[in-house]
Amino acid sequence: MNVTIINIGDELLIGQVVNTNASTMSRLLTAAGMEVRKTLVVGDERQAIWDAVDEAMHTSDAVLVTGGLGPTKDDITKKLLCEYFNSELVENDMALQNVKRIFESRGYELTPVNRAQALVPKCCEVLNNDLGTAPCMFFPSTESTGSVLVSLPGVPFEMEWLMRNRVIPKLQETFHTDIIITKNILVQGIGESFLSDLIEPWELSLPENVKLAYLPVAGMTKLRLTYRSNLNNQSNLNNLTKGLYELAGKYIVGEDCETLDELVHKTLIERGLTLATAESCTGGNIARLLTAQAGASAYFKGGVVAYSNEVKESALGVKHSTLEAHGAVSEETVREMVEGVRTRLGADLAIATTGIAGPDGGTAEKPVGTVWIAVADATHTEAKLLQFGANRRQQNIDRSTNQAYAMLIRLICQKD
Amino acid sequence: MNVTIINIGDELLIGQVVNTNASTMSRLLTAAGMEVRKTLVVGDERQAIWDAVDEAMHTSDAVLVTGGLGPTKDDITKKLLCEYFNSELVENDMALQNVKRIFESRGYELTPVNRAQALVPKCCEVLNNDLGTAPCMFFPSTESTGSVLVSLPGVPFEMEWLMRNRVIPKLQETFHTDIIITKNILVQGIGESFLSDLIEPWELSLPENVKLAYLPVAGMTKLRLTYRSNLNNQSNLNNLTKGLYELAGKYIVGEDCETLDELVHKTLIERGLTLATAESCTGGNIARLLTAQAGASAYFKGGVVAYSNEVKESALGVKHSTLEAHGAVSEETVREMVEGVRTRLGADLAIATTGIAGPDGGTAEKPVGTVWIAVADATHTEAKLLQFGANRRQQNIDRSTNQAYAMLIRLICQKD
Repeated sequence: MNVTIINIGDELLIGQVVNTNASTMSRLLTAAGMEVRKTLVVGDERQAIWDAVDEAMHTSDAVLVTGGLGPTKDDITKKLLCEYFNSELVENDMALQNVKRIFESRGYELTPVNRAQALVPKCCEVLNNDLGTAPCMFFPSTESTGSVLVSLPGVPFEMEWLMRNRVIPKLQETFHTDIIITKNILVQGIGESFLSDLIEPWELSLPENVKLAYLPVAGMTKLRLTYRSNLNNQSNLNNLTKGLYELAGKYIVGEDCETLDELVHKTLIERGLTLATAESCTGGNIARLLTAQAGASAYFKGGVVAYSNEVKESALGVKHSTLEAHGAVSEETVREMVEGVRTRLGADLAIATTGIAGPDGGTAEKPVGTVWIAVADATHTEAKLLQFGANRRQQNIDRSTNQAYAMLIRLICQKD
Repeated sequence: MNVTIINIGDELLIGQVVNTNASTMSRLLTAAGMEVRKTLVVGDERQAIWDAVDEAMHTSDAVLVTGGLGPTKDDITKKLLCEYFNSELVENDMALQNVKRIFESRGYELTPVNRAQALVPKCCEVLNNDLGTAPCMFFPSTESTGSVLVSLPGVPFEMEWLMRNRVIPKLQETFHTDIIITKNILVQGIGESFLSDLIEPWELSLPENVKLAYLPVAGMTKLRLTYRSNLNNQSNLNNLTKGLYELAGKYIVGEDCETLDELVHKTLIERGLTLATAESCTGGNIARLLTAQAGASAYFKGGVVAYSNEVKESALGVKHSTLEAHGAVSEETVREMVEGVRTRLGADLAIATTGIAGPDGGTAEKPVGTVWIAVADATHTEAKLLQFGANRRQQNIDRSTNQAYAMLIRLICQKD
C-alpha cells in the first residue's frame, strides 16, 4: 500500500518555512508499514494543486494533502477537491459542533466566515479534528479513481494529532494493513559501518518479517526493528534483540526512545535522580533539549553556561591555577567543572563540556573539534576526550551533546 | 523564470531526515528573484527519478536536483542523467583535480572508487565543488529539452555553498535575470494583522517594482522588501523605508539580519558589549542560539539555567524572601535574577526569564503561558510581563526568547 504526500502552501515554496509536515507524516506512515513513494510541495495555486492531485490519484493507493483549509480567500483546497470529486458543499453536523465547541471554549462569537468551515464536500467522511476548526476530510475510493484521498490542515500540531488518531487508523482499516510493531535501540560510541560489520551475524539471522533500519544522527545510531504481523506479539521482538546485545551490548545506551535526550528525561524521572549541567562549547544545548520536554523540572536543578574562564572560576569553582596550567579545554578543567556544578547546585548527577566548537579558536595541540566531556555522581567522575576534527560548529555541538547524554546513562546504569 | 526542485533520497521518504535542502534552496532562489513552482522528493529508485526529471524538464525553465551523487551503489543520479541526456561518462580534469586536492588535504589515498567521482556526462559543464568530492553538474538547454538542469550533492553545507557561489550566478547569467536587492526589517511587539493595518498607507505607496513580504515567526515579524532592477541601487531601498519608520518605528528592532539572535550577536560584537543570561522557562535556549554562532565568545560571558528555586538563590542571589513573598514567576524575582547574573558574571548587559512554559504548572492567578522577562545594564533594568495563553511549550519558549532579544536591543539603542 503506497502513499503520495502533497503539501500545499506558498510559504513552503519561498523557503520561509521548513516543511516538517512531510517528514512527520513520512515517519508516521513508515512506522505504520505504509510506503511513501513521493512527497511534493505546490503553492496556493489552483492548476498546480489540481495537477498534483490528479497525477497522485493515478499513481498511489492513498493521497494525503495538507494545507489550504483555512477560512481565508487563498485557502482553496476544499472547493477544488469538491469539484475534483464532482460533489457539492454541504454543512456537516459533526464539523459544525466541533467549530462551535472550539469558539465557545475560547470565548469568541461564531462568525459566518468561521461557520463556513463546517461546509464539506457531500462525498467525503469527516474525521473529527479535536484541536482545530478546519475539518479533516476522507474521500473513499470510487470506481473512477480507485484511490483514497485525505485532506488535512497544515498546522503542524493539528496535522500530527490527526495523523496519529484519525488518519492512520482509518487507512489501516481501509487497506487491512498488517500490524507493525517497532522497537528502537539507541547505540552510541561506534560508527555506523563498524556497527554494521559487528552485528552482521545477528542481522542475517533475523526472520523475514523483521526489518532492520540504521538511522544515524549526530554521533548516535538508532536501530529500528520493524516486525510485521497480524498478531500483536511484542515478546517475540524482545527475544530477537538478545543476539544484538551479545554482539554490541556495550554500545547500546537504551531502548524505546527516539532520542538520547528523551532517554535521559525518562530515566531521571523513573529513578528520581536530579541533574545539573555545566556547558562551555555546547552553550546551553544540553539544558535546552531536556527543558524542552514537559516535566523536566522534576529532575533538572539548573545549569551554568560557562563560556568565559571567569565564569568557570566564579560560578563553578574551577581553580585559577588549573586553567593556567592546563587551559580551559582539558581533563583537569572538565573534572572541576562537573564536580563544581554538581555540588554547588545540589544535584545527584552532573554533566560538563568544554571544547573548541569552531570554526576558529583551534591550535596545533588542540585543534577545532577537541572536546572534553565529563559526567559525575557523588562517588564517580568519568571524563572523555573527543576529537571531532570536522570544521563544523553545529555538528560538533550536536555530537558533544549526544556523547554527554550517553555517558550519563552509562554512569547511571553502572550501578544496576 | 521558474524552477522545479527534486530532492532524491530514501532517508527523506521515510521521514528520518527533515528536508531542509528544499527550504534552503527555495529561500536562496526566491531571494534571487526566481520563482520556485514545485519541490518534490523521490527515493533512490530509477524509474521514480527518471519520471520526476522528465516531467520537470517539460514544465520548468530550470530543474535543480540534489542527491544520489556519492560513490556507493545506491547513488544512481549521475548515470541516470547521462542516459537521460544521451551522453557518455568521461573523466573531467577539473573534477579530478578537485577530488585529488581534497584527498590530499585529508591525508587519504585516492582509491579507484573515489577517482570515479571525477567521471561526468560529456554534455555537462562542471561547477567546481570546493567543499566536497561530488561534482556539481550543469546541463545546458538543448533543442529537444529547452530547459537547463543542475545536479548538486545532497550534503546540506556543500549544497548551500554551491547554490550561493556557483548555481545562482550561473542561472542569473543563463537567464539574464534582473538584479534583486532585498532588505529585511525585523519587527517585534505587534501582531501581523495589526502591523499590516498600521503600515497600509506606506505599503500602498510602494513603487511597482518593490515587493513586500510578511514573514512571521515566534512573536516576531520579518518584513522583506524586494527591489527588482537592472541597476544596483541600494540607496533607493533605504529611502523607501523612511515611511515605514514614521508609522511603525517603535516596533522596529533592526535591519539586515534574518533573526533576532543574529541581530543581537552582530550588535554586541560591533559595540564591544558583553552579555550574561539567567534562564528559567527558556531553559538555555537564549544562550544556545547565541553560542551556535561563530564568534560568540567575544561577548558571551556565560549564563545560568536556574530551573529550581535553590539555584535562583545560590547561583543568582535571588533573595529567599522574594521567592517566598512573590513566587518564582514574578517581577520581583526576574529583576533580582537579571541584576544578579549581570553583576556575578561581570557582564555589561544581562537577560533573565522566568515563567510557566506548560503544559502543566499553571494556576488560576498565573496560568500556563505567564512569563516575566527582564533586561539590564549597569543603570537600568526593564521588566515585562507576557501572557502567551497558548498551551504549547515550545512556542512559549521560542516567543519568550525573541521577546528577550528584542528588549535587549531596545535597551542598547536607548542610549544612542
